[in-house]
Amino acid sequence: MKKIVVLGSTGSIGTQTLDVIARQPEDFEVVGLAAGLNVNLLLEQVRQFKPKWVSAANEALADRIRSEVPSDVKVVHGDAGLNEIASQSGADYVVCALVGSLGLTSTLAAIEAGADIGLANKETLVTAGHLVMRRAKEKGVSILPVDSEHSAIFQCMNGENRQAIKRIMLTASGGSFRDLGREQLKNVTVADALKHPNWSMGAKVTIDSATMANKGLEVIEAHWLFDLPYDQIDVVLHPESIIHSMVEFADTSVMAQLGNPDMRVPIQYALTYPERKVSPASPLDLLAMGALHFRKMDFDRYPCLRLAYEAGREGGTSTTVFNAANEIAVSRFLKSEISFLAIEEIIERVLSKHNFVAAPSLEAILETDSWARIEASAIE
Amino acid sequence: MKKIVVLGSTGSIGTQTLDVIARQPEDFEVVGLAAGLNVNLLLEQVRQFKPKWVSAANEALADRIRSEVPSDVKVVHGDAGLNEIASQSGADYVVCALVGSLGLTSTLAAIEAGADIGLANKETLVTAGHLVMRRAKEKGVSILPVDSEHSAIFQCMNGENRQAIKRIMLTASGGSFRDLGREQLKNVTVADALKHPNWSMGAKVTIDSATMANKGLEVIEAHWLFDLPYDQIDVVLHPESIIHSMVEFADTSVMAQLGNPDMRVPIQYALTYPERKVSPASPLDLLAMGALHFRKMDFDRYPCLRLAYEAGREGGTSTTVFNAANEIAVSRFLKSEISFLAIEEIIERVLSKHNFVAAPSLEAILETDSWARIEASAIE
Repeated sequence: MKKIVVLGSTGSIGTQTLDVIARQPEDFEVVGLAAGLNVNLLLEQVRQFKPKWVSAANEALADRIRSEVPSDVKVVHGDAGLNEIASQSGADYVVCALVGSLGLTSTLAAIEAGADIGLANKETLVTAGHLVMRRAKEKGVSILPVDSEHSAIFQCMNGENRQAIKRIMLTASGGSFRDLGREQLKNVTVADALKHPNWSMGAKVTIDSATMANKGLEVIEAHWLFDLPYDQIDVVLHPESIIHSMVEFADTSVMAQLGNPDMRVPIQYALTYPERKVSPASPLDLLAMGALHFRKMDFDRYPCLRLAYEAGREGGTSTTVFNAANEIAVSRFLKSEISFLAIEEIIERVLSKHNFVAAPSLEAILETDSWARIEASAIE
Repeated sequence: MKKIVVLGSTGSIGTQTLDVIARQPEDFEVVGLAAGLNVNLLLEQVRQFKPKWVSAANEALADRIRSEVPSDVKVVHGDAGLNEIASQSGADYVVCALVGSLGLTSTLAAIEAGADIGLANKETLVTAGHLVMRRAKEKGVSILPVDSEHSAIFQCMNGENRQAIKRIMLTASGGSFRDLGREQLKNVTVADALKHPNWSMGAKVTIDSATMANKGLEVIEAHWLFDLPYDQIDVVLHPESIIHSMVEFADTSVMAQLGNPDMRVPIQYALTYPERKVSPASPLDLLAMGALHFRKMDFDRYPCLRLAYEAGREGGTSTTVFNAANEIAVSRFLKSEISFLAIEEIIERVLSKHNFVAAPSLEAILETDSWARIEASAIE
C-alpha cells in the first residue's frame, strides 16, 4: 500500500487525484493533505481520507481545521507547512498538484525525504529543472508525469530504448481561442478565455492553454523530464485532444497514446505505474469521433510558445522569468487588469530586462522569480 | 550477429527483408535462402548474400542453381528442401515469408530446431495456431510478427502487463474496392483488384485486402499470437493505413503505432527487436496528412471477415478450411476463372460442407486442407 501526500488537494488535479485514490482503497493510504484557502473542501477531504497530516494556507485556517479534526492529526500551515507535510509525514509518494511556483520547494523537500513524485506542477521543472532532476537522480527518486501530454510520452517510451528516440511531438488543442486570428484576440474577455473546448481544468491552466504558454511550459518540462534537447521536442496542433502526445523513433515508427480528455487517466497512471488499473474514464470511441486532425503550429499566432522555446534554449534563469512573468500576467488578466494580448507583451518585456544567470542556485532562482513578479506587476 | 534464413526470399516480403538485412551487414548473416520459381532473382540474391544453403521449388531449378554457385553451397529443393533449410542450416532466426499454407511445415521444422521465427506467413497460425504456439512455448522460441498490424500491436504491448489489455483494434484500409458498394463488386476485374490504395504487396494479399479475407486471417492470427479471445479483437476501417493498429488497456488508454505504409519497418522491427534501428522508410508527416479517419467495419459489405470470425470462434479445422478455400478461390479469381464475389461464396460453401474436427493433429489439418482445396476447386 502506497502512503500518499497530496499537495494542492482542493484544486482540479488534487480533487481528481483523490477521486482516483478513493476508488482503490486497497492500494493507497492518504497520509497527508495540503490545500490553500478552500478550507471547507479540505475539511471534507480530511473527514473522508483521515490523513495524519493536514496543511492549510495560514495560521487562522490551521486553527479552524484543528478545532474540527481528531487531536492526533498534525495540522501545519504556510510554506513551512507544505515542506513539513512533504518531508515528514512518512509518505512514499507525493503528488505535487500545487499551482504555480509554490510547488518547487515542497517538491524538493519530498525528494530529500526520498518520496517518489507525481508531478502535476509544471513550474517545478520549468524554474529549477536542473536542480530537481539532479537531486531526484542522486536520491533514487522517480518523477512521474501527471500532465496528460507527458504521461502520454512516458507511456510511449514504455519498454523502449531512449537512445532510439528521434523526437517527441506534444499535441496542443489550440485552446479556447483557436479559431480566432490575432486581430480578434484584442478584445476577448476573461469569461471567453475560460471556456476550454476539450479539457476541464483550473483557471490558470485554461488561460495558459489559450495563450499556448501552457504548451511552452510543457516543452520546457519535457526537456527536463525526458532529458531531450529542444530540437527533439515538437508541438503539433491537434484540435480534438485525443492523441495526448507522440514519440517518433529511429525506425520511423511513431507511438501515440490516445484517450478521451480525462485527467484521471494520467493521474492514475502516475499512481499505479507500471501497472494499469480500471479507470472511471469513458472509453475512447474513435468511430463516433470519425476523424483526428493535425495542423502545423503557428509561432506567430502563439508568441508565448515562441518565447518559451527561446527561454528554454537560453536555459538558466530565463525559464524562471518566463514562468513568473506569465503567472503574474495571467493573474492580472483574470482580474481584468490587463487585456489578453498584454500577457505575451509582459512576458517578452520582463524577459528582455532580466539579468541572465546560467546555472542558478535555488536562491538565485527564487530571487529571479521575485524580481520577475515585481516587474510583471509593475508593467502598465 | 544473427544467422538468418529467409523462406520465400524472392517474394514481396522476402525481397524487403533482404533490403533491410543488406543495410545492416554488421548485425545479420544470411545462412539460407529459399524461393519458388523465380530462380533468376534467387541466383542474384545468392550472389549478393552468399548463403551456405539454397532451396528451390524443384529438382530442375536446383540443378540450375547448383551449376552457378560455389560447390560448398548446399542446394536443396521442394517441401523437403524447405524443411531442411529451416532446420539444418544453423540459423538462429528464420523469416517465414512463404505465401499460403506452404509455410506451416517449414515453420514447425524451424521451431523444432530452436530458431526464433519472424512470421510473415499468416496461414501458419491460421491453420495450426494451437500446434505452433504450443511447440514454440515448449521450445522457448519467440514468434515475432512481421505483418504491419501485428507488429503494431506487438509494439503497443511493449513494457505492458498483458493482463491489462482490454481489446486490440486491427486497422483495415478497406482495400482496392473500399469505395464500391456490393452491387458494384459484381463486375470488377483482376486488374482493378490488384490496385491497393496504400500498400504495395503480393497479388494474393492484395486480393485478400479487397475481400477483407486478409483482415480475417489477421484476426485469427492475432488470436493465437497474443492469446486473446475473439471478443477482444476488433477491426476498424482506417482508410489512410497510417495507424497500423491499436491496443486499448484497462485504464481506457489506447496505444497506437503509426507510420507510412512501408513493410520494411515491421520487418526490421521483427529482426532487431527489442532494439530499433534507423530505417530507410520515409518519416511520417502528420501535418501533410492533415487528418486520419475511422469508420465502423461493415460485416455485410465484407462477408469474408464475418466468415473468418465465425471460423475463428469455431476453431479446430474451420480456420484451415477458411484459409484453404480462400487460397484456391483467390487463385481462381486471379486466373479469371471466377468472379470477385464468387470468392466469398466458395469459402462459405466449403465451410458449410466440412467435417469439423475440434483439436486436429498436423495430419488432420493437412488432410482437411487438401479436402478443402479440392472442394474449392470443384465449385462451379
